[in-house]
Order: sequence, then structure tokens, then C-alpha cells
Amino acid sequence: MQNQQNQIETIRMPSIIRETIKIFRQRGKTVGLVPTMGALHNGHLALVRRSSIENDATIVSIFVNPLQFGANEDFAKYPRNISDDKDKLKEIGNVVLFMPDDMLMYPKGYSTYIDIGEIGTRLCGKYRPGHFNGVATVVCKLLNLIKPDRAYFGLKDYQQIVIIKKLVNELNMDIDILTAQTVREYDGLAMSSRNAYLNSEERKDAQLIYKALKTVETQLLDKSITPADVQSLMESTLRTGSHVKEIQYASIFDHETLIDISTSNVNNYKGKKVLLAAAVIIGSTRLIDNLLIEL
Amino acid sequence: MQNQQNQIETIRMPSIIRETIKIFRQRGKTVGLVPTMGALHNGHLALVRRSSIENDATIVSIFVNPLQFGANEDFAKYPRNISDDKDKLKEIGNVVLFMPDDMLMYPKGYSTYIDIGEIGTRLCGKYRPGHFNGVATVVCKLLNLIKPDRAYFGLKDYQQIVIIKKLVNELNMDIDILTAQTVREYDGLAMSSRNAYLNSEERKDAQLIYKALKTVETQLLDKSITPADVQSLMESTLRTGSHVKEIQYASIFDHETLIDISTSNVNNYKGKKVLLAAAVIIGSTRLIDNLLIEL
Repeated sequence: MQNQQNQIETIRMPSIIRETIKIFRQRGKTVGLVPTMGALHNGHLALVRRSSIENDATIVSIFVNPLQFGANEDFAKYPRNISDDKDKLKEIGNVVLFMPDDMLMYPKGYSTYIDIGEIGTRLCGKYRPGHFNGVATVVCKLLNLIKPDRAYFGLKDYQQIVIIKKLVNELNMDIDILTAQTVREYDGLAMSSRNAYLNSEERKDAQLIYKALKTVETQLLDKSITPADVQSLMESTLRTGSHVKEIQYASIFDHETLIDISTSNVNNYKGKKVLLAAAVIIGSTRLIDNLLIEL
Repeated sequence: MQNQQNQIETIRMPSIIRETIKIFRQRGKTVGLVPTMGALHNGHLALVRRSSIENDATIVSIFVNPLQFGANEDFAKYPRNISDDKDKLKEIGNVVLFMPDDMLMYPKGYSTYIDIGEIGTRLCGKYRPGHFNGVATVVCKLLNLIKPDRAYFGLKDYQQIVIIKKLVNELNMDIDILTAQTVREYDGLAMSSRNAYLNSEERKDAQLIYKALKTVETQLLDKSITPADVQSLMESTLRTGSHVKEIQYASIFDHETLIDISTSNVNNYKGKKVLLAAAVIIGSTRLIDNLLIEL
């Protein structure tokens, strides 16, 4: 399983990955899973490296899951760079790539879906109906197939993590869901495969998302604003960018329920973690980011 | 684990059953699961005995799953005879009883559900909306919690078996779903916990369900009728009972898709398995039965 020829083992069939994992298990190996949609960046690679340290074997899945894209979203044009992805992964030890075709994951007549409930309709779910049920369904499938000891997700997709932890807990799966800090560009922009869509002008405006988050963080922590001021302050920062076409949300949320707490009594959250989060359309690219802070 | 004191080990906590299974696994034991709602009859016990033969350890779950009962159904009055159930199980070797409380299976805020799709809306699903999604959800939870090598279900609930096999296959679970023939009373009535609801007059009429199934089976096999005649012949047999209040369905179905094939070309099904199935309300008790036959 060492990548001695500097090539990465790539498996496409669910039945083969299942047998591969069984062999690992028979040898007493622990298994980590890093589910991705490919177009790997340093955020993904940080997760893979962590899994590679914490487990004997790491499965990286690359699957652009059609279920989690809306009809008007970017499924068709979502970046796919398998050759680059393999080059990046082969530098990390003990990695197997699982790259199933759509028809192997959702064969003809497929009809079993997870409904994660109201939490999937908040924040991004409001603007991407069905998205989180699609995420929950594919993650449920991957977790059942790979049966990892640990699965790794980046905190940039904070709502996704809340939902996957809920899925694993409520469907009684025995898997540790581990998270890693958002990896950022030099100017704070959260790494995302979708950053590739931005032209240079849009790219400049994209840094405003992190700037808005950090501005409200600073002012909340030094008490110069309260949660009630978060939305307007974030929005005024974001609106300085001429390519910022839409602010879907930019506010402060309970970090567990994801309910907007901008009008809640600030004293209820004293000493507690809260989520600052935003979803913004820059040019025609939808970007999200968040910060978890303690009030 | 031998029931030497003639008592059965009873576990209520999901976390404890999980640890119990882990110990079995560490010892290299195979595990069978027989999910039930209690009020055990010989149909259940045949499944438990088979699991006891085929696995080193058998978990029998007793959980009257609120999710699979409609608002106007018999959840509250569903028969519960835990003491009798334990007496019956303790005669069978290597059985552990798992009997979780509702609040352990569906804690406050629970919101993760399986949607099994159109197949759950056919036959019984048409009359019990949401029933099969409730079944799929609890079975998914039990399978994830127990992680059995094999799980056992009775063919009396034929649609349930089709749905559970679909669930396991489509969510990529690695568990063998095994089935056992319907166990019947002396007059052919399929054993069911709900038979306890019948008074003696209704009990007499209840045998008409099996009689109707066997009548159409015989006449289909000797070619004296075609699938197009099945509904009317079954209904005329059933209607001889004065306590037969409603025939929800009584027809012939594709055994995989569960689509009614009474108007299909009989030649398409020559040499193939088909399902004869009925759901009937006798007095105020809903009973189901079926026969799988080869045309």
C-alpha cells in the first residue's frame, strides 16, 4: 500500500473498495475517510494528511455528487482535475483513491434518500433546497461502504459538519467525525474549489467575506457592538465590493441549532461559542465562510 | 452467554448493546439480528431459531416503533407481553434481548429519516402513509447499531422485505437480509401479533384470506384463470365473511416492483415469480398475507 511507484491506487467499484477495506480490517488496520468532490486544494490536503497520521490507511473519495446540486447550480461545470488531484495525493502516504461513477452510486431505480429535517433548511439550505439531504445521503452511503474509524471534514462547510454529526448520531453509526480549521489564502479567503470560478476583479472582492467576519469578531469581542449589529456591519463591509451581487446571509448563529441569534439576548450567549457565517454571490460564484468565536 | 439460569440478558441502552457487540466481534463471533415489535409468536421464534443456528450470537430487538404507526393506528394498544416474550426466548440459545426505550431511539430533537421512495407508497403504503419510511428508518438504525452479519425477516411482511433489501443495497450496507416462510395457524391464517385483536367470529373469517390466496394460486397454476381474474376471485372469496369490512387490496403483483400486474400480459410472467397479496380489515383489525408463486 506504500505508493512506491509514486502512483496512487484508484478504485472505482463499491464492491472492490468494500473488499479492500475488509483486507485492511483483517490486518487490524484503522481506516480514515476523507470524502471530497475533487479539485483538491490545501484545505482538503490538510484533512488527508491528518487522516494519514491518525489512521493506518486513508481512503480519499472523489465524487461530484449530483444529489447535492440544484437544477440551476454548477454540477456540470464543477471543477474536475483528476490528474492534478492524483499528483497531490501521491505525496501523502497510505492513501487509496475511491472514485465511483454516478451509476455505481445511484443505479437505475435508486430511491433511498436521507431527510435530515429542519436543520437542512437553514443558512445555505434556504438557498439550496435539497442540498443537505443530498449531502447526508451520499455521506451515509460512503460511511456505510468504507466503515471508517474516522471521517474528516473541513470547518469551512460548518453547516455540513453539524448535519453529518447529526446524521451519524441519529442513525446510530459508530464513526468519529473529525474537523479541521479552514485553510485560507494569503488574504484570508477560505480555500474552495469554487474560487477557480473567480476572475481577478471578483477575486479581490472575495477577500471581503473574511474581512467582514474578522471585523465583527473584533468588535464583538471588544464589546463595541452587540449581536444585533452583526448583520448591518457585515453587510456594509461586503457591499464595498462592486462584484458582490447578493448577500444570502451574513449574521450570527447558535453554533448547534444554526438559528439566527442577532435579536437574542446577548447575555444568553456570554462565554458560549457562536457562529459568524456568510454566503455571498460574487460575480456569479457563490462563496461561503464562517468563524466560530466565543462571546 | 448461555442462558444457564434460564434468564435472558436484556439490554436497554444503545451504547451498551454496541459495546456488547464489540466484545462478540473481538472474540470472532458472528451476530444475527431479529428485529421485532414483541408479542412474539411462532413466526418470530422460527426466525430466532434460524439465527441461533446460523450465528454465534443472536440479538432479538423488541421495539414498538412509533414512527411506523399512523395517527389513527394501533400504536397505543399494540400488544406488549414482555414477560411472555422473555419466556419464549429463553428456550433458545445464545440470545440477547435489546429493548430500547423510545427516548433512546428518538431523543429530543431527533430529525433524521429515511425516504424509501415510491415502493413505499404501493400496497400497504397506500393505506399506511409514512409506514415504510418509519420501518426503513428504525431498521437502518438497528442495523447500524448492531452491525449484524445477518438480519432475519418473515415473508408475511413481504413488502417490508423488498424495502429493507432496497435500503440495505442502496445505502451500501454489508448485511445479508434473510427471510423465512410465513408460519400459519392450523387453518392457514398467517401468524401475526394482531391476530390477538380478533374475537371468535372475526377469527373464523380471518381464515378466508389464506383461502382466497390458495384458491387463486390453484386456479392460476391449472390455467383455469388468468391474472385478470385474480382480483374478482379473491374478493368474492373474502366477501363470504360477514366481518370482512374492507378489502384494501387483493391482487397479483410483480414480486420486485410490487406493481399490480392483473392487467398485464400473462405471457410476460410465464415461468416467473409473482406475488399474490391481500390486506383486509376484519372487524376493526387490519390483516395482511401473501403467497409467492411461479406462473
